[in-house]
Amino acid sequence: MEHLTPEEKQGVYKAIFKRRDIRTFLPDPLPGEALENILESAHHAPSVGFMQPWNFILIDDQDTKRELAHIVDKERRALAIHYEDTDRDLKFLELKIAGIQEAPLTICVTCDPSRAGDHVLGRNSIPETDMMSVSCAIQNMWLAAYAEGIAMGWVSFYKKNDVRRILEIPPHIDPVALISLGYTDSYPDRPILEINDWERRRELNKLIYNGKWGNPRE
Amino acid sequence: MEHLTPEEKQGVYKAIFKRRDIRTFLPDPLPGEALENILESAHHAPSVGFMQPWNFILIDDQDTKRELAHIVDKERRALAIHYEDTDRDLKFLELKIAGIQEAPLTICVTCDPSRAGDHVLGRNSIPETDMMSVSCAIQNMWLAAYAEGIAMGWVSFYKKNDVRRILEIPPHIDPVALISLGYTDSYPDRPILEINDWERRRELNKLIYNGKWGNPRE
Repeated sequence: MEHLTPEEKQGVYKAIFKRRDIRTFLPDPLPGEALENILESAHHAPSVGFMQPWNFILIDDQDTKRELAHIVDKERRALAIHYEDTDRDLKFLELKIAGIQEAPLTICVTCDPSRAGDHVLGRNSIPETDMMSVSCAIQNMWLAAYAEGIAMGWVSFYKKNDVRRILEIPPHIDPVALISLGYTDSYPDRPILEINDWERRRELNKLIYNGKWGNPRE
Repeated sequence: MEHLTPEEKQGVYKAIFKRRDIRTFLPDPLPGEALENILESAHHAPSVGFMQPWNFILIDDQDTKRELAHIVDKERRALAIHYEDTDRDLKFLELKIAGIQEAPLTICVTCDPSRAGDHVLGRNSIPETDMMSVSCAIQNMWLAAYAEGIAMGWVSFYKKNDVRRILEIPPHIDPVALISLGYTDSYPDRPILEINDWERRRELNKLIYNGKWGNPRE
């Protein structure tokens, strides 16, 4: 196992700790090489039984982005109803939850549960490991984007069937994420939901148990 | 948004492309600082609505590791039955699918779907985003482990209720992964399932579509 240099190691940790979920983008397109690196990084994620259940639909056309932004906004308005009469009502309406129309590129990342046959090694026991593999691919994309100086936002505000209709995705394929990519001039140093006082980062030590559930670490 | 130096950027890509799923470990314990960095990296993963649904149960005691290894082996034998009379029958029996007993540390990573209340931002639309968040945390652990020169293996061969019983995990909490961590003297340069001729890496370009599902990129 190769050892990273101290500076290489620092690069890994910078990407992990400074990665943010971004909703504000500049219109400048992504350099081709950066996009390839981001996609290759996704494809080098771990996958259960090496099933590689992912596909990537690249969307840069304005009409399609507008259609996606529209169904995301419908879902945002639908969720607003659930926050009515709570202390989060106004806060929610102020949150910007997607940057699909501004970002030069949106990638719909999908999961194909039928990939690699009927008995995928490890997925027989925990079927959702297909989607977990795709999530690892998305996290790789995020860290690669950070390394390229490119901002990324993950949108999960939509009804999957709306996305299937717009992008002509077959019914058995799961559109698990809409990913916006682009440059930004607004890169916060903390999570936007923390800045907007929506949630706080929990204390890590309280999330760690020793030997069995509930047993404090020290 | 800070720019990484070329060497820092190289560190990110080395971790992403050279990360492997390991099943063979040396008994040497992990340095405390490396473990803290790995756990902090997990905790800095993205999470839907910033819900941070993860917990980490650290297991270094031999008896508990033996119990976990036993239920994993039961599941391995059960799966072997599904490969009977196929061309993968013998190949499967030769695969080493876990290194829980050798590795000095196993971390059970869990997902708490009740974390952060009834209407988690973004999870109202796609409920499985809780588990997808935990998967991003696991991928961060993997890349941080690589940066620390530590090998990691993700085991998903078990019945969740067996793990709940052994680790006293409440019924509503999902033990989504058993993660083994340790040093190794056997670090392959390709995925072990590729080396064992179980699956091959797919051609990335065929997994990428342009504008809509099924539309080839070029």
